[in-house]
Amino acid sequence: MCQEIKMRIQKLRELMKERGIDAYIIPSADNHQSEYVGEYFKAREYMTGFTGSAGTAIVMMDEAGLWTDGRYFLQAENQLKDTGIELYRIGNPGVPSIEKFLIDKMPESGVLGFDGRLIAMKEGSNFEQKLAGKKVSIKYDEDLVDLIWENRPELSKEKVFYLEEKYSGESTTSKLKRVREYMNATSSNYHILTSLDDIAWLFNIRGNDVKYSPFILSYAIIGLEDSKLFIDESKLSDEIKSILAHDKIELRPYNEIYEAVKEFKDSDTILLDPNGMNYALYKNLSPVSTKAEATNPTVLFKAMKNKTELNNMRNAQIKDGVALTKLMYWIKNNYKNEEITELSASDKLEEFRKQQDGYLWQSFAPICAFKDHAAMMHYSATEVSNVRLVDGHLFLIDTGGNYYEGSTDITRTMALGEVSSEIKTHFTAVVRGMINLSRAKFLYGCRGYNLDILARQPIWDMDLDYKCGTGHGIGYLLSIHEGPCGFRWYVAPHIDDSNVLEEGMVITNEPGIYIDGSHGIRIENELVIRKGTQNIQGQFMYMEAITFVPIDLDAIDVKLMNREEREYLNNYHKMVYEKISPFLTEEEKIWLKEYTREINPHH
Amino acid sequence: MCQEIKMRIQKLRELMKERGIDAYIIPSADNHQSEYVGEYFKAREYMTGFTGSAGTAIVMMDEAGLWTDGRYFLQAENQLKDTGIELYRIGNPGVPSIEKFLIDKMPESGVLGFDGRLIAMKEGSNFEQKLAGKKVSIKYDEDLVDLIWENRPELSKEKVFYLEEKYSGESTTSKLKRVREYMNATSSNYHILTSLDDIAWLFNIRGNDVKYSPFILSYAIIGLEDSKLFIDESKLSDEIKSILAHDKIELRPYNEIYEAVKEFKDSDTILLDPNGMNYALYKNLSPVSTKAEATNPTVLFKAMKNKTELNNMRNAQIKDGVALTKLMYWIKNNYKNEEITELSASDKLEEFRKQQDGYLWQSFAPICAFKDHAAMMHYSATEVSNVRLVDGHLFLIDTGGNYYEGSTDITRTMALGEVSSEIKTHFTAVVRGMINLSRAKFLYGCRGYNLDILARQPIWDMDLDYKCGTGHGIGYLLSIHEGPCGFRWYVAPHIDDSNVLEEGMVITNEPGIYIDGSHGIRIENELVIRKGTQNIQGQFMYMEAITFVPIDLDAIDVKLMNREEREYLNNYHKMVYEKISPFLTEEEKIWLKEYTREINPHH
Repeated sequence: MCQEIKMRIQKLRELMKERGIDAYIIPSADNHQSEYVGEYFKAREYMTGFTGSAGTAIVMMDEAGLWTDGRYFLQAENQLKDTGIELYRIGNPGVPSIEKFLIDKMPESGVLGFDGRLIAMKEGSNFEQKLAGKKVSIKYDEDLVDLIWENRPELSKEKVFYLEEKYSGESTTSKLKRVREYMNATSSNYHILTSLDDIAWLFNIRGNDVKYSPFILSYAIIGLEDSKLFIDESKLSDEIKSILAHDKIELRPYNEIYEAVKEFKDSDTILLDPNGMNYALYKNLSPVSTKAEATNPTVLFKAMKNKTELNNMRNAQIKDGVALTKLMYWIKNNYKNEEITELSASDKLEEFRKQQDGYLWQSFAPICAFKDHAAMMHYSATEVSNVRLVDGHLFLIDTGGNYYEGSTDITRTMALGEVSSEIKTHFTAVVRGMINLSRAKFLYGCRGYNLDILARQPIWDMDLDYKCGTGHGIGYLLSIHEGPCGFRWYVAPHIDDSNVLEEGMVITNEPGIYIDGSHGIRIENELVIRKGTQNIQGQFMYMEAITFVPIDLDAIDVKLMNREEREYLNNYHKMVYEKISPFLTEEEKIWLKEYTREINPHH
Repeated sequence: MCQEIKMRIQKLRELMKERGIDAYIIPSADNHQSEYVGEYFKAREYMTGFTGSAGTAIVMMDEAGLWTDGRYFLQAENQLKDTGIELYRIGNPGVPSIEKFLIDKMPESGVLGFDGRLIAMKEGSNFEQKLAGKKVSIKYDEDLVDLIWENRPELSKEKVFYLEEKYSGESTTSKLKRVREYMNATSSNYHILTSLDDIAWLFNIRGNDVKYSPFILSYAIIGLEDSKLFIDESKLSDEIKSILAHDKIELRPYNEIYEAVKEFKDSDTILLDPNGMNYALYKNLSPVSTKAEATNPTVLFKAMKNKTELNNMRNAQIKDGVALTKLMYWIKNNYKNEEITELSASDKLEEFRKQQDGYLWQSFAPICAFKDHAAMMHYSATEVSNVRLVDGHLFLIDTGGNYYEGSTDITRTMALGEVSSEIKTHFTAVVRGMINLSRAKFLYGCRGYNLDILARQPIWDMDLDYKCGTGHGIGYLLSIHEGPCGFRWYVAPHIDDSNVLEEGMVITNEPGIYIDGSHGIRIENELVIRKGTQNIQGQFMYMEAITFVPIDLDAIDVKLMNREEREYLNNYHKMVYEKISPFLTEEEKIWLKEYTREINPHH
């Protein structure tokens, strides 16, 4: 393989030389900065042999490097062996960032090259600025890897399906009207959309071009009277074309947008979010037109789910709750007598999900982690790592589904047999944190960072922490990580999740404890932000849990919970039994009754 | 009086006409945007007759207006009667802001006038921008009120005293060194300071030019080798002049700075915080020099108290705790047999404070509020409003002292006789909030807005709220409201208090409940931010309470507190007894033992 890699690098260097390019960047992105990319876009994998989900390669005439983060150091070391590509371990002391590397190594008046569609506008502009001192110019108009890549997978051609109003709760006509009101308020006559979830939401279409996410590779330009949708027409049925035409949506070839944006006139004002845009598109924008830079209005529109969407999501959650409850019953009652592994448990859960009406596919790569595997937050079981579930340890299951009725993301950690008192202490702290955040009442205007401490406090009180946020927004059959809200205590620079918590937003609540080499615990429910009492103090808000799966009482040390926490858990489990039991077998019902039993509220 | 006001307005209009000024703004500020201003600066009071602490007047040739906020609507209505000045109630529906008023009323190519030293840079620049459309120019170089104001009070001439190192913990030599390191890091060769607390801290001098705050009217320009201090030299003893000369600090007349800043050269880079600067100074800055705009490094330096300062502050807190405890004893044991009023209680407390070694004067206007007076957060007892303390209600005391050993700000609310169960429920919620914030453990990097919910939660859970932050930083014999940290859940646009909580910062913790027409409760302790456990999770921080005064058990409903809260209160009261009792009389000790008794930790 490394011989093959060396040959590819060699060919790339020849192409670079022809074009006078000194350094060529190959990122892990697609044209839309999507979280997951389709096979067609895995150019960095092709060119380096490194297959982790995050990594950027830079090829110069005499050297080449691959930058990746701590999750992948070991994997990258192995895969880059003997390729001549040096591994740069991001974050390690003394390791230069990509920016610093380029500032140091680019020659005066050199040329930096990359496919401008794969680089975010901010990133590209940053290279421009930082390398201006060396008079470096940027050549962003060619995908050189495409000239080398034999048998490159095709761009996905998956068919598009329409999301009817009984699911979406709002017609495209209405959504376009709201977007146009916003455009008028910002004096814009055009609006460019490049984010796939916003486009899918706006036009009520879904597809399968990005693994796990029901998106379609597309761009859109919305005008005040009509719109253009840049998409591979062959994915659309005649019926869908007709529905779109009804709203004066003209279909254009997917890549034509790069020319279309050159056509804006000096009388045009274009509403756009430069943060979501790729560099090539931003650079191609006609310079005579005015840009109104703002967050896409669809970000907030789609985050604040309507009544129909919320009712559907509640239904999807019941279905998912049934699947997970059945799995918990099956595991607890069978792990001793038959071999159940991380992977077979994952498959069983998929079976249970497939039994649910309206289930489409998984909303993200399942995390089924036994014992110390669960301490690695990004663990994903493979044939190599797969283990059998045995007595005395925890099994963590973090999975979700895409349904016509919305997307789910649920985590339960279950005890198999007797677990240690340390594990129970940790488990109970996580449960307390999840409960205390769930039951918070707060004034409208609060953001996730005002409330995160409620989930984290029982864990911080033990001198422990979990190195991630407490929760993220969820889209309606869209992104499983959807802005603009989330629960996090610091404001993460690259993550847009500190928005005010608005009515109708759906957000996860998933604190955890991860002890290297021992165990990992995460308990995750989904919450809907709702309006509560309104009085002279203002508008109080609260959160409605819509996830209903038992929280394993076998792992809880009740003595560590105060009265309010116990009462919450009792009420919650009562609702779990009411909502889930109608869909279970008799044996499962009996089991569920036991696992949703009341705990003594008094010390 | 209104005739007198009319005459003054008339004279101002004559001066405006001479100069071609269409509108003249008279704010409530001094040259340093201080929170409290000296008598000399009360121009708005002089010109309008309105004496509230906040209000801005605008005089045009045919009309005049006074803008103020809700605290003062009634007072302003009364005082402006028959003056011809219209009251603009800020925040009321339909009431134009000052900005909107000027945008509407200024004529094309008009002239807006004000004393540029009294207007903040941002505010002045905003007027520039917003009125540019009408081609309005700004004339900021004259104090017209000074030409009218007969018998204007003089600028304060209070003597300066030196803060010895046993109090400050750090020499000026060392402080200048740190500032110069920061200047080097920002490639600046000059640093302008206009904020009085930063100047006082840096040069280890204190004065009495601003009521309650130990500041001296001054400006400073710090160079890499020497500095200039712009100050009225007559306030300085020879000894102090000699100390300053030792650090190459040249004394210049107070107002000379307006000329001095014109002298910077194009090779100079000036470190400055435009937010703290007044408009005239900013506009006078030589345009050829470079400005490095950043927060003054002294903001963080002085907020992070050193060991000496913290030990001193602990001492000052004990002294203040003794004074308050003596007051509580005296009130509880005497309010029935003798007439005690809000004002006489305030005077008694001042007596007790004066008995403490090193006490200088009050750190802010005392708030002593009985019964429903306490529901008005900004209530200050006057001869007119003063009432006697009687059975069955709460008495709120929010006061503080300036000591050589630091400043204090403590609030206690005490029950006189039996109070209603609603009052006890509210009181207990406030105590719980204060306790829960006090005992928070958090990772370094948290800001006040991450923790505010801990104080507010018991109150929000009751559909109540308090319309202010939960706490503010405190300076060392400097500002009683000192940035850059504080406890607040929203980020207030004009208040700089969302900094990371750093070791050594001292911050108040003062939740409350205010029920109009009935009662008001506030319990305030001061906390020091401290480093706790450091492990692989990071640096944990905690908060050390340094205020020791009993929290009135007569007003607490213990049943509403959980075990952790009761344990905290018991430990706290134990320390109150240990630290305060040595300084009490025998009777006071017996009383304190009763009022710091253990409450049953079990439900």
